[in-house]
Amino acid sequence: MPDNQYNPTRPFVFINAAMSADGKIATIERRQTRISGSLDFDRMDELRASSDAIMVGIGTILSDNPSLTVKSPQRREKRRAGGRDENPVRIVVDSLARTPIDADIFKKGDGRRIIAVSKSAPQERVEEISKLADIITAGETGVELKRLLTELKARGINRLMVEGGATLNWGLISQGLVDEIYTFIGNIIIGGRTAPTLADGEGCKGGFCRLALISCEKLDDGILVKWKVLN
Amino acid sequence: MPDNQYNPTRPFVFINAAMSADGKIATIERRQTRISGSLDFDRMDELRASSDAIMVGIGTILSDNPSLTVKSPQRREKRRAGGRDENPVRIVVDSLARTPIDADIFKKGDGRRIIAVSKSAPQERVEEISKLADIITAGETGVELKRLLTELKARGINRLMVEGGATLNWGLISQGLVDEIYTFIGNIIIGGRTAPTLADGEGCKGGFCRLALISCEKLDDGILVKWKVLN
Repeated sequence: MPDNQYNPTRPFVFINAAMSADGKIATIERRQTRISGSLDFDRMDELRASSDAIMVGIGTILSDNPSLTVKSPQRREKRRAGGRDENPVRIVVDSLARTPIDADIFKKGDGRRIIAVSKSAPQERVEEISKLADIITAGETGVELKRLLTELKARGINRLMVEGGATLNWGLISQGLVDEIYTFIGNIIIGGRTAPTLADGEGCKGGFCRLALISCEKLDDGILVKWKVLN
Repeated sequence: MPDNQYNPTRPFVFINAAMSADGKIATIERRQTRISGSLDFDRMDELRASSDAIMVGIGTILSDNPSLTVKSPQRREKRRAGGRDENPVRIVVDSLARTPIDADIFKKGDGRRIIAVSKSAPQERVEEISKLADIITAGETGVELKRLLTELKARGINRLMVEGGATLNWGLISQGLVDEIYTFIGNIIIGGRTAPTLADGEGCKGGFCRLALISCEKLDDGILVKWKVLN
């Protein structure tokens, strides 16, 4: 596993995502569908267990309500034996503090949670959430991702796994804050002009973010592709 | 090369497309960008030369103005030696007959052209285009793709290459009219919530189109993935 030797001011950041053969991570109704097979789920679980923290955007919390926990008891035990929490720190990028207090990331699994908000988040929502999670405030109306990553590094997070969605992925990639991207490409076509893809947001008109292929291999009924980001 | 042994009522249909690592075939401004390298261009040229016809949607004509010709003189010569036109039949799916009469598919290269229109196409536009191309009318307001393919088969087109765009790809895939999909995945991220992807249109909410992986291999700085469509 690569260490964060590249950049001492932020964690090593990688995106992991499953997408359809046409680049979609969910349907037009933003409903996540089963794209991965069991080998890919296991690979993802290992990636989670090997990370200091897992980050998602608020859209992913609201549409999928993931717990972001490590599923394998062996891997949780291994983390505990190494003096760490069972689960990596779970982080939500949530400008307006919309994470529901009954979200599965709060209800399921041991370990710390961090909700990253902006100064525009309603104070009462922030106070409510602060009973369940640490709050990091970075940015006026949106979360300033670069500042957030610096703050996470200062809190000892050296290896950060990003699990989407499309908007957070784009924000990080477009600001040069991602080191590697791993995509499992599954054997379905989802289609849909407005279905979320691996990276949405504003998009590039030129000066595209360039990648270098690390590897591609068959996995389950699809392909696992690993890219290094050339910033 | 697979023959059309699957379906005697329509050609063997394959989609060939180059997409970014995030599934985009163009930018949010619908501008095509160089995703492929020279090996992939050569592969595409061979696919064109091996096909009876090449089909695109009107959106692709209006945004990219492609000539859709075979680029290699050797391959053109080989086609001639086999008693065929230098270029495959070039087909535009163009419900309202909007193909400009100065489009490169008319100006460049020898060979037949077919413009497929619906009954809603303005008569004067159809007459104008009919001086440069055969006209096939199929459907009331949109082109009925299944009827069009049956008509193409009747005209001796057994092997049809589809080069996009996202709307035509989706139309064909969603109606079960595609046999194989070849995607070159290039080493860039394009991003953009509204950037065209391999397959757009309405999209699936469930009952996804399923694929079987034929092969994946490194090519240029990206990956060539071949899928068989399981209809």
